[in-house]
Amino acid sequence: MRIYINEAKHHVGEQVQIAGWLYNKRSSGKLHFLILRDGTGLMQAVVSKKEVPEEAFKLSGELTQECSLIVTGKVSEEPRSPGGFELHVSDVELVGKSEDYPITPKEHGIEFLLDRRHLWLRSKRQHAILRIRAETAAAMRDYLNSRGYVNLDTPIFTPNACEGTSNLFETEYFGSKAYLAQSGQLYSEAAIMSFSKVYCFGPTFRAEKSKTRRHLTEFWMLEPEEAWLDLEGCMDLMEDFIVEVVARVLDTRAEELKILERDTSILERVQKPFPRITYDDADRILKENESDFVYGDDFGGTDETILGDNFDRPVMIHRWPADIKAFYMKRDPDDYSKALAVDMLAPEGHGEVIGGSQREDDLEELEKRLKEHDLPKKYFEWYLDLRRYGTVPHSGFGLGFERTVGWICGTKHVRETILFPRMMYRLEP
Amino acid sequence: MRIYINEAKHHVGEQVQIAGWLYNKRSSGKLHFLILRDGTGLMQAVVSKKEVPEEAFKLSGELTQECSLIVTGKVSEEPRSPGGFELHVSDVELVGKSEDYPITPKEHGIEFLLDRRHLWLRSKRQHAILRIRAETAAAMRDYLNSRGYVNLDTPIFTPNACEGTSNLFETEYFGSKAYLAQSGQLYSEAAIMSFSKVYCFGPTFRAEKSKTRRHLTEFWMLEPEEAWLDLEGCMDLMEDFIVEVVARVLDTRAEELKILERDTSILERVQKPFPRITYDDADRILKENESDFVYGDDFGGTDETILGDNFDRPVMIHRWPADIKAFYMKRDPDDYSKALAVDMLAPEGHGEVIGGSQREDDLEELEKRLKEHDLPKKYFEWYLDLRRYGTVPHSGFGLGFERTVGWICGTKHVRETILFPRMMYRLEP
Repeated sequence: MRIYINEAKHHVGEQVQIAGWLYNKRSSGKLHFLILRDGTGLMQAVVSKKEVPEEAFKLSGELTQECSLIVTGKVSEEPRSPGGFELHVSDVELVGKSEDYPITPKEHGIEFLLDRRHLWLRSKRQHAILRIRAETAAAMRDYLNSRGYVNLDTPIFTPNACEGTSNLFETEYFGSKAYLAQSGQLYSEAAIMSFSKVYCFGPTFRAEKSKTRRHLTEFWMLEPEEAWLDLEGCMDLMEDFIVEVVARVLDTRAEELKILERDTSILERVQKPFPRITYDDADRILKENESDFVYGDDFGGTDETILGDNFDRPVMIHRWPADIKAFYMKRDPDDYSKALAVDMLAPEGHGEVIGGSQREDDLEELEKRLKEHDLPKKYFEWYLDLRRYGTVPHSGFGLGFERTVGWICGTKHVRETILFPRMMYRLEP
Repeated sequence: MRIYINEAKHHVGEQVQIAGWLYNKRSSGKLHFLILRDGTGLMQAVVSKKEVPEEAFKLSGELTQECSLIVTGKVSEEPRSPGGFELHVSDVELVGKSEDYPITPKEHGIEFLLDRRHLWLRSKRQHAILRIRAETAAAMRDYLNSRGYVNLDTPIFTPNACEGTSNLFETEYFGSKAYLAQSGQLYSEAAIMSFSKVYCFGPTFRAEKSKTRRHLTEFWMLEPEEAWLDLEGCMDLMEDFIVEVVARVLDTRAEELKILERDTSILERVQKPFPRITYDDADRILKENESDFVYGDDFGGTDETILGDNFDRPVMIHRWPADIKAFYMKRDPDDYSKALAVDMLAPEGHGEVIGGSQREDDLEELEKRLKEHDLPKKYFEWYLDLRRYGTVPHSGFGLGFERTVGWICGTKHVRETILFPRMMYRLEP
């Protein structure tokens, strides 16, 4: 019977087959120790000269890194072995050879590894990061699904470059132009008028000439949007959401976090309440920390790091100067110069992971905003309709998925948090 | 306390608030019957002249379709009312007015509705379809997650137009060209060598000049890929997967299927085993049905309908002429002219919903295929590496998500199964 390595505990004493790849090997005269990996874990297979056919022993001695093979043997408990179980081999079959596998246990440069991303994925560290990515996505979806948020997919092709084309990817669309969406928010705002609570979770695109460790040209964004929700409610949601997602990953992906040597005590501190400070408070903190930050600007990467490091858990910075925020954000009724916007910064220099706001729900105010931002009203007629027919207060946020995974994993660069990263100088493989 | 309509059963006898939109209204002299919708359901609110302030009664009489409002009242059971509960109103507050809402209960043309997709979403039918879409997606993810398939997101930007650019959307990419992916399969094939079982689920793009009811330029595709899986195993997986997903939607979305007047007996017949016929069998069936199908061609829309209608549940057609199938498909060892490919057709004219195959895992064979298909080997070196280093037999499939949702819902055209459909002549709103 073929089993996966992570099922070994149910098969102690049984004869089984494991199909996988050779991760590593040690040999003494009469024994070969094969470390197998099969996508679910690692397992040591012990090939003893006196217990296998002569050919199988010879073959085991010749196996090379990353060859694929099927190993037959008996499962036994072995606390000293990786994963806690061992296979006492009775036969070995080589399926696919592997000569001169290019990624060896020695150190390789990052460009060398990115050029071989299709193979680099097999390494212990990349495997762990992407497992955590998948778990994080599932945790996020489960959080929202179980609370009645309806998952709807917003379009990628958008008809106009409302806010300038400089950061947008453009494509021919049957004789006209289409642009790749940077967000699904405006469309989700239409959807909440039917569903009340929705989210989209898909790829977004930004043609930014940024080569920082926090930028990809193609990245996934999770965007919940909710009717009848104000900025305070939105911050409550962001906080509760992050606490639950981080707790689940800590619980179910402890092994992977260990492989990454992640300091999990930092993640365990992700508990309510998160500090909530205003933009003005943030300005004071930066000045106290001798940043050359200018009031009225957006925070730079260094500012975000200073602010994030000032707290032991994610911090929410709200009420931003309206001038530097998007046209659709509602003004603070208590201070018209401020937008009801919030950014959540992760600690340890991971920067902004969430941006949210209460949306402008008043038709006339929104029309004024379009004018101020010099946006063509005709492209927004449909969006204005949402304020013409049964407008409601509403809010939502966008979470940068790779940055969030990078923070949870403690990776320095977001490029390791996605299967095949796309960056300014990286479109392959 | 504010509640959602679908929570009414837990609040019988209590004073609550419902925030929503006015779906419909009837009035007699001393009573107004407001039908509210809040995204979770419909509920009748009874406004009695003698039980509410005079202003509230007057307001209720003036409320118009799709205005937003907050209604306060006491919940009672009322089997004759939609949803089974009723609200005995003590107060009404208008939040957002709605004058001359363009979509009325009368019939509208499809272009009129598509131009107003942002409002059309609020209709009972569109709401039901998109709820089923969300449930279907969740069912699919849960099926795969619970069986150890790792969800990984394959890239949208791809560096070259391997199989001709005619059906691809192209974009400038920092001085070079990038193309929008039509599939994540090749990338998932790299991933299974690390994870064994993976899937991607995201938007794909096809610049086809098709205006049929089965085509969108932007559509979602679910693609599982699995190491050590042969064509038979792949068909087992497709079958088991579809049976479980359809059963879950039948179970949890019965109300929405009723709204759509879906004949659910057809969906209840989606049980194992599905018929499995060869391409040659299909050819015979078509000839018996007097189709002018030519052996060696792909099936047209009409052929798919004939074949689908020939069975009472989805049918799997396997072993296709290799010439009309993709370069990466493995040849049938028993008949080298055939590819180990399979299509699943849905009944009732919904056509192909799944296409799958066993992949070519032999380096030399794959190199030969590239040559035959006149594909530039240098772009596929990374893909060939997967056969150089520990190749394994493997298979996978791609499921057209909108077609599958359309089949489950019994919609004639896929354009209703996605939030904002993108078609050849439709990029807005």
